[in-house]
Amino acid sequence: MIIAVPRERGPRERRVSLVPETVARLTKLNHQVLVEEGAGIESGFSDQHYRDAGAEIVKPDAQWMKPADIVVTVQNTDFGPSSPYAYLRPGTIIIGMLGPLSSPPETFELMLQNKLTAFSMDAIPRISRAQSMDVLSSMSTVAGYRAALIGAEQLPRFFPLLMTAAGTITPAHVLVLGAGVAGLQAIATTHRLGAVVQAFDTRPVVREQVESLGASFLTLEIQTQQTQDGYAQALAEDLHQQEIKLLSKPVAEADVVITTALIPGKPAPLLVTKEMVANMRPGSVIVDLAAETGGNCELSRPGERTVTDNGVIIEAPLNITSQLAPHASQLYSRNVFNFLTHLFSMGLGQDGKELDFSDEIVARTMILRDGQILHDVLAKRMTQVRS
Amino acid sequence: MIIAVPRERGPRERRVSLVPETVARLTKLNHQVLVEEGAGIESGFSDQHYRDAGAEIVKPDAQWMKPADIVVTVQNTDFGPSSPYAYLRPGTIIIGMLGPLSSPPETFELMLQNKLTAFSMDAIPRISRAQSMDVLSSMSTVAGYRAALIGAEQLPRFFPLLMTAAGTITPAHVLVLGAGVAGLQAIATTHRLGAVVQAFDTRPVVREQVESLGASFLTLEIQTQQTQDGYAQALAEDLHQQEIKLLSKPVAEADVVITTALIPGKPAPLLVTKEMVANMRPGSVIVDLAAETGGNCELSRPGERTVTDNGVIIEAPLNITSQLAPHASQLYSRNVFNFLTHLFSMGLGQDGKELDFSDEIVARTMILRDGQILHDVLAKRMTQVRS
Repeated sequence: MIIAVPRERGPRERRVSLVPETVARLTKLNHQVLVEEGAGIESGFSDQHYRDAGAEIVKPDAQWMKPADIVVTVQNTDFGPSSPYAYLRPGTIIIGMLGPLSSPPETFELMLQNKLTAFSMDAIPRISRAQSMDVLSSMSTVAGYRAALIGAEQLPRFFPLLMTAAGTITPAHVLVLGAGVAGLQAIATTHRLGAVVQAFDTRPVVREQVESLGASFLTLEIQTQQTQDGYAQALAEDLHQQEIKLLSKPVAEADVVITTALIPGKPAPLLVTKEMVANMRPGSVIVDLAAETGGNCELSRPGERTVTDNGVIIEAPLNITSQLAPHASQLYSRNVFNFLTHLFSMGLGQDGKELDFSDEIVARTMILRDGQILHDVLAKRMTQVRS
Repeated sequence: MIIAVPRERGPRERRVSLVPETVARLTKLNHQVLVEEGAGIESGFSDQHYRDAGAEIVKPDAQWMKPADIVVTVQNTDFGPSSPYAYLRPGTIIIGMLGPLSSPPETFELMLQNKLTAFSMDAIPRISRAQSMDVLSSMSTVAGYRAALIGAEQLPRFFPLLMTAAGTITPAHVLVLGAGVAGLQAIATTHRLGAVVQAFDTRPVVREQVESLGASFLTLEIQTQQTQDGYAQALAEDLHQQEIKLLSKPVAEADVVITTALIPGKPAPLLVTKEMVANMRPGSVIVDLAAETGGNCELSRPGERTVTDNGVIIEAPLNITSQLAPHASQLYSRNVFNFLTHLFSMGLGQDGKELDFSDEIVARTMILRDGQILHDVLAKRMTQVRS
């Protein structure tokens, strides 16, 4: 099949959907790969790297993607009427983190009009056989690592315990809120650097993972269960108040707080109130990984660094995974390759063969089929916009 | 005695010479401590912290330091004719990192005119009983830690090996040039973060220390000895060429190069030529800790971040220890306290008692006595300026 790799155009986006390593594997399987000129530059991959991997480098005129059977993107952007996406043939497949729960509805309009088929990588089910395709997990690994480094970089103190001839320097205290993949990676990295780490999660099931990484575990007395996809359920208001009360003291005592609490398709839950920030010491740092959906800290300003009146530094990075674009792209690209391999094994691209829609991976990720919406929440969102 | 703590006025200087913890120890010993208003702010210590420690906070009029018997500073700056230093009484003691080998000669003029006595903390001998006063060692610990973090922060890749469901990410390769205190701390920190670390030094004696931190050791076949103070001797030109040849391949293969080679009182030796940088991969990072004395990398611009044509990032930070001002100040302050304790034990401040000038610590650090220069190199430098 013919696979196109456009240059990403989203804000702060430095990743590329397929890296040369993956392109080489695809061309070896007799697929043809078209790569937009300069697509990999921001991730450290030159056009020559792609050529060496067997890709054809294409100048981006309006129709350059027209021959494609599959277009692989990182983000859902640039689907405006004058973009090359407007020229895609009906039935062309888009694969990317399309955000059916969160992307602006207008980004799907062109896909519907052109009767495209779309698989959203962020909807990969969290089941064992799909782990190797789990882009949210890969990207969270990147985000958690970077958050830990940002915390260490911004804190004007040592992370590790130091025993010097001039006496002892005590280690920094790090508090990680939310022990999903990003939280666990942040725990691992700050612990590696020598900090004393405490982690909070509403799901008792993650206690063992937190403790195995060397952190102590903090949870509510009345705990929540995790959803089928491994997320924490949203808390009722009284539980939320209990959570904030529980966290007040550990937040005030922490040198670095890393927040990672997300609820898919909803604004991030508030975990760190402005009162809690006011009780922190000058020079303390908050790294808010939920900035994309508004932030876990009341004072976070997405995309900016804030220094409060009492000297607390709040970092609320957007597209943090792009800060590690080469490795983030590599992981994403491998996830996509594993996903494509799965689709190929089910007959994608073979004449007369239909995909098996009862397969959980296909069923969960295919959000559009020849312009028809297969995703409930997206369908509802599109209807709301049109009415 | 009356001890004054002025606010530092040097460029990028955020440290303070005595922190409240040390002030409390001095006031407990019945010394009186005068602290210039706001002196600790940049290090996270408020005037109230100092008051609580028993200090008197003083507004900086021209004569505020006049009552002082001892003035403790971090850097040798602000000794101009209109500064409060102009009003110090003859015989007043200045303690600080005064830089007899490197500070501009004019910074000593006022001390000579006013017949001051000066102890330079950067001249503490590197002997066992002076280890707790060794400010170069403390500050190098801070610098090495920060250099490692800067390297990790600037590199757009993971440091650690990652085994994910989407495959393996290989660890970053770090090369540390110079295995003194800063180099060893950089090795320890990058190794903690999971990088594969290689270190180079011309002194075979440091091999064991390097290897005990988990790094591999690289040295010249013809090695140099270390000086009495533990520095590498400057290399003859042919050895220097041999060094550059040896380093070309490891530098080209490294993701992060941290350079730490200093020769006291001389420009930093050139270790990384522009040809070597040209052979590095895009996105690689050089952190040059020798920026204060010109840099170990030919393309370093002290105080700036440079991105070369081939995409190599060069960081050449100035006053890097001020990036960790609270802890750097704490270590420095403890060093000074240990030094003061030594001077007090030898009779400083007791009527009719003379310091024992045969004591190695006194002999090496006392660079001025009542306006007379006791330091050979400084004397030569002052003569050159005056003639």
